[in-house]
Amino acid sequence: MVDEREPHDEKLALILRTAAAIFAEKGYHQASIRDISRATGISLSGLYYYVRSKEEILFRIQEHAFSTVRENVLRLMAEGGTPEEKLSKLVENHLRFFVTNMQEMKVLSHEATALTGDARRRVNDLKRRYTELAMGLLREIEPRKSPEDLRVATFALFGMMNWIYNWYRPGRDLQVEELAAEMTRIFLKGFPGESQPRDPVEGTTEPQPSIWRA
Amino acid sequence: MVDEREPHDEKLALILRTAAAIFAEKGYHQASIRDISRATGISLSGLYYYVRSKEEILFRIQEHAFSTVRENVLRLMAEGGTPEEKLSKLVENHLRFFVTNMQEMKVLSHEATALTGDARRRVNDLKRRYTELAMGLLREIEPRKSPEDLRVATFALFGMMNWIYNWYRPGRDLQVEELAAEMTRIFLKGFPGESQPRDPVEGTTEPQPSIWRA
Repeated sequence: MVDEREPHDEKLALILRTAAAIFAEKGYHQASIRDISRATGISLSGLYYYVRSKEEILFRIQEHAFSTVRENVLRLMAEGGTPEEKLSKLVENHLRFFVTNMQEMKVLSHEATALTGDARRRVNDLKRRYTELAMGLLREIEPRKSPEDLRVATFALFGMMNWIYNWYRPGRDLQVEELAAEMTRIFLKGFPGESQPRDPVEGTTEPQPSIWRA
Repeated sequence: MVDEREPHDEKLALILRTAAAIFAEKGYHQASIRDISRATGISLSGLYYYVRSKEEILFRIQEHAFSTVRENVLRLMAEGGTPEEKLSKLVENHLRFFVTNMQEMKVLSHEATALTGDARRRVNDLKRRYTELAMGLLREIEPRKSPEDLRVATFALFGMMNWIYNWYRPGRDLQVEELAAEMTRIFLKGFPGESQPRDPVEGTTEPQPSIWRA
């Protein structure tokens, strides 16, 4: 099994970040450990000190991303608020995370089925727990929904958010917090109606926390 | 350039359908013409009578899918109705098409950037025209929206719909027309509120038009 070392080690973080970019570019199956060695400047034997295989790299990228996004949401939930406010925080956290780590997110979306065995089960378990967090909020907002409708609504929300890697242009489209406010508004109130007024100031810099730094 | 033969030829339709399944399974870059030859039982020289390259196959899958889905919507729009009714038809057409051709749709989503040059431009042009059709309806529904908000709303809607290849289980989840009604409701009115009552009859068979037959 893959081991439990956390990517606080800078070299490991470099390996995972670089690998994510290569997987996003070429696809996981086409990429090789040799590509990662070349791009990081770390020798093959150096790489194998950190990871046992290409599959372990994919596992660690996925595990780290889903753990981080879920832990962030749990911390935000602990601040309290109405279910709608909590949902709005979940959407903003998810989108900020996604926009900041587009490469990693593309890998999560496209290589969801590339893992096998225990690694796949562990990632699926993390995903399931994160999905249930969102579904629980929707159940609080609208307790009358059937399980089938809750399922549709939860994945409609994730689809809305996750699809952004296909169209969102950082710096040209809405800023992340505006995007989050608008998607939350569409999801809770429907598309028609007034959007929130936009901040006319362009190009303000937001903190962009990479998932590879705590 | 790729030529204009339409896949009314059964053998070509077989090649494209089989190739779509193989691309969806292995990824486009990992798949070979040889894989397609093996799976279809058509010799390599037979394949090269129909298509010039693996890239032409990918192009024809994408071109055929986007043309078909857009032509269907144009036909439905021509029946008239309010913008909301038209949107509801677009959503049902899109989801039915998607559910019926999950393999092809996965290829469209994941291999969007695998095409190059002229083929890529032509597919992007088809996509843009289909996207603008949806955006035009949203503009009719809510003329006050800014272009930025229309863009967010349009891609939020497509994200909601396209994400289904990650979670939808035909035969276990809602039937396509129920799914379409619920997604349209969420998009136009917001998630809270009553969903339409469901038909309790399970396992009714719906016509499942494959994109490879007219």
